[in-house]
Amino acid sequence: MVVREKILDLVISCFKRHGAKGMDTPAFELKETLTEKYGEDSGLMYDLKDQGGELLSLRYDLTVPFARYLAMNKVKKMKRYHVGKVWRRESPTIVQGRYREFCQCDFDIAGQFDPMIPDAECLKIMCEILSGLQLGDFLIKVNDRRIVDGMFAVCGVPESKFRAICSSIDKLDKMAWKDVRHEMVVKKGLAPEVADRIGDYVQCHGGVSLVEQMFQDPRLSQNKQALEGLGDLKLLFEYLTLFGIADKISFDLSLARGLDYYTGVIYEAVLLQTPTQAGEEPLNVGSVAAGGRYDGLVGMFDPKGHKVPCVGLSIGVERIFYIVEQRMKTKGEKVRTTETQVFVATPQKNFLQERLKLIAELWDSGIKAEMLYKNNPKLLTQLHYCESTGIPLVVIIGEQELKEGVIKIRSVASREEVAIKRENFVAEIQKRLSES
Amino acid sequence: MVVREKILDLVISCFKRHGAKGMDTPAFELKETLTEKYGEDSGLMYDLKDQGGELLSLRYDLTVPFARYLAMNKVKKMKRYHVGKVWRRESPTIVQGRYREFCQCDFDIAGQFDPMIPDAECLKIMCEILSGLQLGDFLIKVNDRRIVDGMFAVCGVPESKFRAICSSIDKLDKMAWKDVRHEMVVKKGLAPEVADRIGDYVQCHGGVSLVEQMFQDPRLSQNKQALEGLGDLKLLFEYLTLFGIADKISFDLSLARGLDYYTGVIYEAVLLQTPTQAGEEPLNVGSVAAGGRYDGLVGMFDPKGHKVPCVGLSIGVERIFYIVEQRMKTKGEKVRTTETQVFVATPQKNFLQERLKLIAELWDSGIKAEMLYKNNPKLLTQLHYCESTGIPLVVIIGEQELKEGVIKIRSVASREEVAIKRENFVAEIQKRLSES
Repeated sequence: MVVREKILDLVISCFKRHGAKGMDTPAFELKETLTEKYGEDSGLMYDLKDQGGELLSLRYDLTVPFARYLAMNKVKKMKRYHVGKVWRRESPTIVQGRYREFCQCDFDIAGQFDPMIPDAECLKIMCEILSGLQLGDFLIKVNDRRIVDGMFAVCGVPESKFRAICSSIDKLDKMAWKDVRHEMVVKKGLAPEVADRIGDYVQCHGGVSLVEQMFQDPRLSQNKQALEGLGDLKLLFEYLTLFGIADKISFDLSLARGLDYYTGVIYEAVLLQTPTQAGEEPLNVGSVAAGGRYDGLVGMFDPKGHKVPCVGLSIGVERIFYIVEQRMKTKGEKVRTTETQVFVATPQKNFLQERLKLIAELWDSGIKAEMLYKNNPKLLTQLHYCESTGIPLVVIIGEQELKEGVIKIRSVASREEVAIKRENFVAEIQKRLSES
Repeated sequence: MVVREKILDLVISCFKRHGAKGMDTPAFELKETLTEKYGEDSGLMYDLKDQGGELLSLRYDLTVPFARYLAMNKVKKMKRYHVGKVWRRESPTIVQGRYREFCQCDFDIAGQFDPMIPDAECLKIMCEILSGLQLGDFLIKVNDRRIVDGMFAVCGVPESKFRAICSSIDKLDKMAWKDVRHEMVVKKGLAPEVADRIGDYVQCHGGVSLVEQMFQDPRLSQNKQALEGLGDLKLLFEYLTLFGIADKISFDLSLARGLDYYTGVIYEAVLLQTPTQAGEEPLNVGSVAAGGRYDGLVGMFDPKGHKVPCVGLSIGVERIFYIVEQRMKTKGEKVRTTETQVFVATPQKNFLQERLKLIAELWDSGIKAEMLYKNNPKLLTQLHYCESTGIPLVVIIGEQELKEGVIKIRSVASREEVAIKRENFVAEIQKRLSES
């Protein structure tokens, strides 16, 4: 939980740095809102039992609820982040960091703007977060749904099969090309020569020079959609260069993104596997952040079909939690689960009343403090508690201290003790805490 | 959302001040885990549709999942807080700040300890939070489930009706005694003379002197359970005095708490209605925090019935959000929804590239910055944006600035502008932000 909190703090503070406001939507949506938005994965939604009232489902992601919110409230422009739970009926394969309930962190920019400026900011945000988390080297694959569709068209995929073939291509990060090809040909009925033509393209990845190359591609350059996508990618790379992150971005024709609602630029960040260190399990976690442009989704919820162009990203925090936890386990790092700064102890019996008065003073001064809930605890038990939970300071009240009107302050690490006048002990503790 | 965030921050930092660790449990539990824990309110649970696998329900509160967690993991001792969503199938009467999905903030102490020390800390926490939120004067009603049951016994309530009568008494904060009496006699079949005897007790409230008085009560003093409860309350008041909060606490025999699982001390905080100010709607929000001791709940989930005594509290943050929002509305207060510190502007055309370079520098220095997503925005539009969203500083880059190698920094409030060398502008902004 402590690790999770730190990671979420870093993500949220990046979202705020980019001017986003926080937003929250309910955990369940009308079932009809969610259907036909997620392609082949729709079966993974959790539905609520019909107990009277509307048919509801638990939200499957945060993007569709955001689009529904924009349409319902006729919001034409908004930059928001949302950190919340989503639910998917997967058999939990915890090894890869996927669960049935998990936390998503989304950032989205809605509104009609000049091309590629918000899109470039989304990629900048992904870079800032992944660098900030110090997860090691990463790469962000970029493509455009219009280039994917254009590629399908010029390779000879029938339009009715675009989304199905897109789902297959999306598996290229987990499956070898020959298996994906098999799925497309055998399961989805694609002509083998069409599959092979796709195969030539999806092996291509590179920087802005690949964009130029594709402009010259004899087949792709015949497709209007693909040309639009390539033009936007060229502009995007220009902005990414100004942001100083172009070296982190790879134009990758194998990136397809399975979700139905993308209409333009799509992207996905992957960690580059560092050679495993001694004793470290090789991690295979897939993508850690992804997103894209979805200009049509809001219009699906608007009674008049009014569109609000959107672009956004989602940070795969569950996978990131898993990676960070694994690393800490390997290194044998321990994290404190509480933040307690001061422990109130006594070496004698019958000092409960004094301890209660002291700890109330500490709490009232905003100091994080604990004591044992026992009338007469042993001093050793109390000191052990501080050591095992990492509390740095102890204040001690006993017969001698009471008589002399002092409080003893003990540093757990150095075991040094110093007596401070009763009326000054809170100030002394605050001083020590501000110095440490 | 900003108001909510501030309130939650205050609540969580109080929980941390008392040494609690954060915890999270899944949104849904096995249906059987939740049944028969909530008395008459059980019908308000949301069940998930049977889509294969286990029968699941959305959690109704955070206490039962906590108890289930302790039992499953054989944890004997724990101090944790949990901030999360719970779901209840109520028709939303938003006026009173109750919704079908709402946020709960719980703090609980599990473990076998000397009596009333953790209980007193729970009341201290409630006081700290309610004072910190500055909601106005409040009072915490305290009673003990054993006193309630003892009272029922000596008044002649048949034991089989204890929980049902308890639920009726629980409504006394919203209904007049005569209506509660009617419900007990007509709906729940209680003898009228028994109801009248209860009526005499439930009018009693006061401080520790009422505890003493009840010790002398000819009927109540004959009941062993009630005497145990009174003894604990006496000790509790001693600790509350040491904590300096006894004046906020009222022993109130009308407090019953509807939930089945309480076994000892119970409490509920109410705001004392301040005379409404001009134009202010009178607020009727019921209790804003509540809790109690539940020593038997963990044992219900343990295969061998091993018990873990627990005491805890729940802050009614939804109602608090509602109160704070209402007050701000009345006073016409506005809150910024973003935290953006600096806006990057240009007075000329064709300065998108320079703006992108500047804003990346700001982000990379951790400064919260925004710009308009337009190639050539008007300067007036840009300055208006700062004023309407409350951004305090503007950095301006134009032809002149570029030529002279400077950046102009403008204060939105004073409209003063000053030119700073390009290489120093980030440092200058950081200086200004740290001073404000």
